[in-house]
Amino acid sequence: MAIAQQHPAAEPAIDLVVKVGGGAAIDRTAVADDLAALWSAGRRFVFVHGGAETTNAVATALGHPPRFVTGENGLVSRRTDRRTLEIFAMVYRGQLNLEWVELLQLRGVPAVGLCGLDGRIFEGERKATLRVRDGERRYVLRDDWTGTVERVNAPLLRLLLDHGYLPVLTPPGASSRGEAINVDGDRAAAAIAVALGAGALVLLSDVPGLLARWPDPASLVRRLTPADRGHAEQIAQGRMRRKVRYAYDALAQGVARVVLAQGSGDRPLRAALEGGGTQMEPQ
Amino acid sequence: MAIAQQHPAAEPAIDLVVKVGGGAAIDRTAVADDLAALWSAGRRFVFVHGGAETTNAVATALGHPPRFVTGENGLVSRRTDRRTLEIFAMVYRGQLNLEWVELLQLRGVPAVGLCGLDGRIFEGERKATLRVRDGERRYVLRDDWTGTVERVNAPLLRLLLDHGYLPVLTPPGASSRGEAINVDGDRAAAAIAVALGAGALVLLSDVPGLLARWPDPASLVRRLTPADRGHAEQIAQGRMRRKVRYAYDALAQGVARVVLAQGSGDRPLRAALEGGGTQMEPQ
Repeated sequence: MAIAQQHPAAEPAIDLVVKVGGGAAIDRTAVADDLAALWSAGRRFVFVHGGAETTNAVATALGHPPRFVTGENGLVSRRTDRRTLEIFAMVYRGQLNLEWVELLQLRGVPAVGLCGLDGRIFEGERKATLRVRDGERRYVLRDDWTGTVERVNAPLLRLLLDHGYLPVLTPPGASSRGEAINVDGDRAAAAIAVALGAGALVLLSDVPGLLARWPDPASLVRRLTPADRGHAEQIAQGRMRRKVRYAYDALAQGVARVVLAQGSGDRPLRAALEGGGTQMEPQ
Repeated sequence: MAIAQQHPAAEPAIDLVVKVGGGAAIDRTAVADDLAALWSAGRRFVFVHGGAETTNAVATALGHPPRFVTGENGLVSRRTDRRTLEIFAMVYRGQLNLEWVELLQLRGVPAVGLCGLDGRIFEGERKATLRVRDGERRYVLRDDWTGTVERVNAPLLRLLLDHGYLPVLTPPGASSRGEAINVDGDRAAAAIAVALGAGALVLLSDVPGLLARWPDPASLVRRLTPADRGHAEQIAQGRMRRKVRYAYDALAQGVARVVLAQGSGDRPLRAALEGGGTQMEPQ
């Protein structure tokens, strides 16, 4: 029917959330080129970036080297005392977020950099007390500034997008009281994709996707569905284990597609959107 | 007449821009308490902060100590090579802006931290080449990242205010190409007050206002009009000279009142609004 072929002049849909890690192998120029190309083609999305690697270097230079602990859930986290949180914010928000905004503005994209604390864009409970394990030993760390993203201020993100601005987001996030807390950027990106009803979530990192035999790139797993979850979480190494977990959580909450791919090479973001990396779908 | 006593249910006017320096004598808790009290009383304003002092300390800790140069206009500026700009952004945007947002959110104010680069909130030309003098010697510095604020993205600030968010702003600003540049926070605040048509601009710093015989606080000049400009710029010492200059520029461009006052003591912001410090008016 003719009427079905007419496209209403609606606001562009927020069809995508893109998260890029902070590893040395990320080609930021190539990613920024892709983001700008998508933006100028009319796609509307939210961009999230990380920065753990740079934080480690700056913390060491400032005489407060990083420490990592293993939680009771087996996941490794940064020990975030108040001084670490300050350095973390200086790097993520002060240095890297500014650089991303600059890369995008130089390409004509009206980028607005924000961290999760601003307008409480991503928020969760602060875990001031952290139960950790060290081999067989269990102990408790106090005065910690970490938390888990549980809520997203989707109206503020929509407000910016509806007025032509690209939100460029980064940790730290907000506690429910309004404190800054160290949160996982991949989980924040997944929560944002769910809250915005985004059609796709792309997580770009230093590796080509989920590798069946890490670090062999030829062992890339090209496709995953929820039926593969147990096996996928088992073969995932290091940070990839978290990514797989959050990706499955996003699929379970309505995101139609998650892509785990590499933030380097030729047109890395567009390659991911065109079927590269590990494509995860609800069925 | 009765009709004149009816107040239309308009959006709250943006009646105020508040700028606070980064000196050690600033009582940030007292300022944040005042900002939160004004906000909850329904006043709508933009908040701008500085951070030069902290930047000097961090730059020294990172092995890149600050350098200052005297321009041909006689004003002292920070020599801003690219590494200095990075450290500047880490401190202003990453550390201090986050702390102000946190102080405000803990007091129930929905603060959104942004720098001038974000959405090009404040923008000017980058002066990559800087003509400086050293006594009788004149020379040129290249690869500099400074500029002067000339334009303000007032619609983005109004968008945030109209939706209930307090913009918490800080340098760096944006160049016309979209690069981050070191700009003067006092001048940025003055330009924002002009662009928003704010009724008042308050500049809080380490000193009680303009002092006729610096540093004697008993020599506080209580009132200034444009007729006093020449004398006022002559007696102003150090950073106060710039403040006086930008304050007069703001008055000349329609801001009804500028207050130069101290960011400490009992209710420092409200004291400034109630007649403390140096009150500057167009006549």
